[in-house]
Amino acid sequence: MKQYIKPDEWCIIEEGFNPSHNQISESLFSIGNGRMGQRANFEENYSGETLQGNYVAGVYYPDKTRVGWWKNGYPDYFAKVLNAANWIGIDVSFDGEQVDLARCKVTDFRRVLNMKEGYLKREATVELSKGRKLAIHSTRFCSIVDDEVGVIRYTLIPQFASKLMLQPYVDADVVNKDSNYDEKFWIDINRNVSSGQGWLIAETKKTGFQVCTGMLVELYINGTKVDFSAKTDSREKYISNTLEVNVNAGDEITLEKFGANLSSENHEKAALGKNCEKVLAAAAKKGFDQMIAEQAKAWEKKWENSDIIIEGDVSAQQGIRFNIFQLHQTYTGEDERLNIGPKGFTGEKYGGSTYWDTEAYCLPFYLSTAPQQVARNLLVYRYKHLQKAIENAAKLGFKNGAALYPMVTMNGEECHNEWEITFEEIHRNGAIAYAIFDYINYTGDEEYLSEYGLEVLIGISRFWAQRVNWSAEKQRYVMLGVTGPNEYENNVNNNWYTLKMAAWTLKYTQEAMAYVKKHDSKKYKELTAAISFDEKKETAQWNDILEKLYFPEDKQRGIFLQQDGFLDKEIIPVKDLSAADRPLNQKWSWDRILRSCYIKQADTLQGIYLFEDEYDLGTIKRNFDFYEPLTVHESSLSPCVHSILAAKLGYEDKAYEMYVRTARLDLDDYNNDTEDGLHITSMAGTWMSVVKGFGGLRVRHGELYLDPFIPGKWKSYTFKIGFKGALLDIRVAKGDISVTNLSEKPVEIYLYGEKRVLESAAVG
Amino acid sequence: MKQYIKPDEWCIIEEGFNPSHNQISESLFSIGNGRMGQRANFEENYSGETLQGNYVAGVYYPDKTRVGWWKNGYPDYFAKVLNAANWIGIDVSFDGEQVDLARCKVTDFRRVLNMKEGYLKREATVELSKGRKLAIHSTRFCSIVDDEVGVIRYTLIPQFASKLMLQPYVDADVVNKDSNYDEKFWIDINRNVSSGQGWLIAETKKTGFQVCTGMLVELYINGTKVDFSAKTDSREKYISNTLEVNVNAGDEITLEKFGANLSSENHEKAALGKNCEKVLAAAAKKGFDQMIAEQAKAWEKKWENSDIIIEGDVSAQQGIRFNIFQLHQTYTGEDERLNIGPKGFTGEKYGGSTYWDTEAYCLPFYLSTAPQQVARNLLVYRYKHLQKAIENAAKLGFKNGAALYPMVTMNGEECHNEWEITFEEIHRNGAIAYAIFDYINYTGDEEYLSEYGLEVLIGISRFWAQRVNWSAEKQRYVMLGVTGPNEYENNVNNNWYTLKMAAWTLKYTQEAMAYVKKHDSKKYKELTAAISFDEKKETAQWNDILEKLYFPEDKQRGIFLQQDGFLDKEIIPVKDLSAADRPLNQKWSWDRILRSCYIKQADTLQGIYLFEDEYDLGTIKRNFDFYEPLTVHESSLSPCVHSILAAKLGYEDKAYEMYVRTARLDLDDYNNDTEDGLHITSMAGTWMSVVKGFGGLRVRHGELYLDPFIPGKWKSYTFKIGFKGALLDIRVAKGDISVTNLSEKPVEIYLYGEKRVLESAAVG
Repeated sequence: MKQYIKPDEWCIIEEGFNPSHNQISESLFSIGNGRMGQRANFEENYSGETLQGNYVAGVYYPDKTRVGWWKNGYPDYFAKVLNAANWIGIDVSFDGEQVDLARCKVTDFRRVLNMKEGYLKREATVELSKGRKLAIHSTRFCSIVDDEVGVIRYTLIPQFASKLMLQPYVDADVVNKDSNYDEKFWIDINRNVSSGQGWLIAETKKTGFQVCTGMLVELYINGTKVDFSAKTDSREKYISNTLEVNVNAGDEITLEKFGANLSSENHEKAALGKNCEKVLAAAAKKGFDQMIAEQAKAWEKKWENSDIIIEGDVSAQQGIRFNIFQLHQTYTGEDERLNIGPKGFTGEKYGGSTYWDTEAYCLPFYLSTAPQQVARNLLVYRYKHLQKAIENAAKLGFKNGAALYPMVTMNGEECHNEWEITFEEIHRNGAIAYAIFDYINYTGDEEYLSEYGLEVLIGISRFWAQRVNWSAEKQRYVMLGVTGPNEYENNVNNNWYTLKMAAWTLKYTQEAMAYVKKHDSKKYKELTAAISFDEKKETAQWNDILEKLYFPEDKQRGIFLQQDGFLDKEIIPVKDLSAADRPLNQKWSWDRILRSCYIKQADTLQGIYLFEDEYDLGTIKRNFDFYEPLTVHESSLSPCVHSILAAKLGYEDKAYEMYVRTARLDLDDYNNDTEDGLHITSMAGTWMSVVKGFGGLRVRHGELYLDPFIPGKWKSYTFKIGFKGALLDIRVAKGDISVTNLSEKPVEIYLYGEKRVLESAAVG
Repeated sequence: MKQYIKPDEWCIIEEGFNPSHNQISESLFSIGNGRMGQRANFEENYSGETLQGNYVAGVYYPDKTRVGWWKNGYPDYFAKVLNAANWIGIDVSFDGEQVDLARCKVTDFRRVLNMKEGYLKREATVELSKGRKLAIHSTRFCSIVDDEVGVIRYTLIPQFASKLMLQPYVDADVVNKDSNYDEKFWIDINRNVSSGQGWLIAETKKTGFQVCTGMLVELYINGTKVDFSAKTDSREKYISNTLEVNVNAGDEITLEKFGANLSSENHEKAALGKNCEKVLAAAAKKGFDQMIAEQAKAWEKKWENSDIIIEGDVSAQQGIRFNIFQLHQTYTGEDERLNIGPKGFTGEKYGGSTYWDTEAYCLPFYLSTAPQQVARNLLVYRYKHLQKAIENAAKLGFKNGAALYPMVTMNGEECHNEWEITFEEIHRNGAIAYAIFDYINYTGDEEYLSEYGLEVLIGISRFWAQRVNWSAEKQRYVMLGVTGPNEYENNVNNNWYTLKMAAWTLKYTQEAMAYVKKHDSKKYKELTAAISFDEKKETAQWNDILEKLYFPEDKQRGIFLQQDGFLDKEIIPVKDLSAADRPLNQKWSWDRILRSCYIKQADTLQGIYLFEDEYDLGTIKRNFDFYEPLTVHESSLSPCVHSILAAKLGYEDKAYEMYVRTARLDLDDYNNDTEDGLHITSMAGTWMSVVKGFGGLRVRHGELYLDPFIPGKWKSYTFKIGFKGALLDIRVAKGDISVTNLSEKPVEIYLYGEKRVLESAAVG
């Protein structure tokens, strides 16, 4: 755990330059706007350890798969989040000496991510050779208003006279650190450069995406804009301007660099260059000051509905805002082709863009804080991949339109290849079904079933029906060869969570069928004909399964069993492990982990969390008391679920402990892996810890319930949620809870189980 | 299944050239001598599909590991059998037209592997451009007398006058087809070439092995040796001679090429070139005719003790001799640093040289057909790797000198990396322990325990003792997370076979301790002190485990269960599968295979085979009747075990069916993978099918038992075995069994359970 980030309510602040933290900070201080994202790499050349990264939404590369031993059913490729052309680069040298923070003395250094207004600022003072002092100020952001544009104001203040060379460039000769065979993924298509601007079009091999990356630069000396005539350079995958300026000691030289990333997903390929010029010209016309003002305004609007205010705990305040900020930077919900990658635009690791994280962890955040369309787009994204999910299942031997959604995907095709996950971590299918329920339960948009939802549910139910088999031994249906959410167990039989998701899907699909049949019988007929759905026969089979499905349990302890044979393990609580053994995934062999009782992330408890209303408090408590002490939370997706359940059980300290762990996971680099990028999807889990955990928010049968409590250390916390067109402001202080209805009509809620009608505060 | 090999008792014969069979034939017609081996590639250039391969024993390369997702405990590299310099190459052209069987019409083609005398012969007639006919005759062998030398007699008979260019060469610019990152593994160290001879020294990267590959050529025209002055070429990793000859129609041009492979494992690096020259000069001095005569004589000697003669079934006769021939080509037992790779010297696949195959399948062959020292060397090989096995176990978290032998190795270090095998297929440890018993039981060499055996047994027993854990649920010791011999199940709990091997080891180790303690108490004290063996404490724990170890069984069926949960599967016999589903490993997804009841290779039955005397016939029958119908035998190591058990149970047809499958596995390319190389280790299983299966050979408490039967189709079969210094000739004909004692003293055996004393036939 590293704790070098200064506490602040609205900013992430690093003071002093520590090269060993640099890659972590590059992740933490990333900026993005849902369309593109940029790690906090320096503009000037840096020869130290760095992970250069600029990412453009929807652009990926099918890297050649790397496996130890091929298994039938593996996909041929692994779609990678793609590092795109570097648009921030500005080479700087004084009298031929290149500025490079790895090679000069850095006397002052401060990096600030202003989350309120959405920009990154860096101030450094360095000493070049012969003790020549130089101040560097840089401010940059990816505009959420003009979302193809990023802007940099880059100022140099040398305390010496010199000949300065400034070389802003665009460089597409970039690599993916996680390329399987050290290949480069881009080819040069076209380039154009002149004094003051230029662009470069690169195309991805195989996928043929084109991205036009452009720049437009303006020069200011001591606040005055000056004309310049730059030398230009254009070579394969590279364009630059070279500006030479004679500077005096104390001069303030500012280069404003407007960058643009235009993707062929949004533009005709032939028009990319011209459109890029237009976008840049428009940005330059607005100018830096106007753009940053618009940025602040747009962020104000985002915060208005999604902020969580915590009084009395700066560290928690900073943590929760950082999470919300990064979620907004990653996904805006405007483009139904996009999804939420586990690292967002902050790193490459894991590849792919879509995991079950989206449905299981992110959806609730967007349901409560964004327009309904945003959550709906996340669902439609999966609907559009249904045919690929059916193909994916067929590849594994399933028939009759059974759908298995991929573990990891960009375009609907599976691109993960570890058999124990690709083929066996099938609970993801359940999360995708559950999200349909979750969305409709929250929004009341039952129409979604007719248009998209039912078809997906039937595909998934067909999969479950084939994935179980009849055990003559048990006289029950069983589900063999499964990996549950706890990936520290592989290829187990009868994972309780997966069985639960399967059974629930088989039931809910029939409810959905009944709804569509009743409300849109024409559509129902069309759909069932199109997918050759034999209602009578198939539902009879589903109901037989529902009736005779096996669930492992320990009757003596009164708990559900994570899987068959779990109790054959040595059960020793995590707290009895030596500190030297943690984290297990770094200290223990995989063999030892697999055979141990330790749980990477909520598994049985994940199921109880989703279906808590089916269980009495005693059952929840017994399961929590058994599994929590065995859970090491080495997945970022784990603590939030435990936090919510702990809150429900009145284990307030545990709820808070789990919250802190999730809220500052990246800021404090808990898992020693923030340098690879941020844990974007788990950030939505943090939000859930507060709203569902401390706030006790639930939606039952379309009605809103709140059961808040306040962690001991806090003075108050406040959050807003949108609910069926209403906007509620919930403030929880010690002994004082207020729920304000900011919308125009009255809203009914249940507070601590008691029904209340909230009149409109907006009106009154 | 491909059946293009002509039946013949002593030869493998291919007639007609079918390029699509070429790589299979390259494997089948491989030649080797235990020191080196060469696939049946053509001498002249061949631009068609080919897997070029020359392999030098003991020379390997640690290729960079390729995995999908790294698991803690994986080794960093994977040792590869290394393709070494091409020593057979002779480029041929007439008037500038290169001879290349892929590009000219092949009108006659015949390839013969003479197993009796140990050489490969090829005769082809081809048509070059303008209808010019050319006959090519080539005979070559790897000498088992001069085991660093290979010899080729290469004759061309053109039916046209022409200018012939002959270019014998050595080329070390070779690749491994299975290189993980398309790297080349050799670097050029030194070269020397002159007219008529030359050599080239190449060194492996990282491992630093040097191999000097040399050639010496002689030219004959119409039977007369002629002097020549060749142009020489020497460039990186390549040397050649170029001979130009004006030929008349009908001339017979013969190039004799003596090749040599000298390894730095056997020579000082500095002396490699000089020694190579000496070796080649000596070979040339002997000359081709003498060398091939010596080769025939040496092979006669090998066959004398190991041949199996089958009357009345040419196909079976050819099959069994092919198996025995290849085993002799692979391993001679003279060098305790060497072992038996699964592909021998016939291909690269699988890498490594040593698997549990050696102990479980090959040892019995060498015990019965070779001097005792050969089997002993196989055991000592493992003794020498004991420290590495202890390190390997420590890497996974085991302590106190517990030893886990690697799944695949060259030098004792693990070089396999699939977690479900590397970490979990631990039954290999049992095979290594069992081999010690097997060897001593067969030979009576109990001294081996003091010198080497006990230390290995204690290391392995320590592993088993830590690998089980106490199940509070079962009130038994259990063994979690195991992959048994049946690799179509992964990560199961309580694999019966592995439990059986563990329990047996814990018991046998104590017997071995008692022996050493009694017969060499000094050695016992030294050893136990050296390895800090706390006899009282450790054996108390072992005995506690032995007493309370859990074995899964189905009491109702009266069978042992392959693993926990096996009966939850759908049990459908293999015969009810559609032909289109077979082989499963090519037709089904891995997911489907894992969840099915189908067994890749003998697992529970493997255990019953090893310990058959512990079980009554009824138990063996019930288990066989349950498991055999579920076994797909998609491992080459499977049918032999089923054959032996079937024979024991009197299922003579099944025993014969399984025998045929193993005997002609490669000749008929049953598994569609012979092109990758031959299944060398399973060939020993074929031998076992005859000797232990049909012959019913067993050694119990050091005494020899025979219970022969004869398959219906055969007239007779005859095999010889060495046993405790005696040599027995066993001939089984219909209704007539004779056992002849070829040694000088009487031998006691049990024939059909009845004790017989065989007087010496050699004397009598």
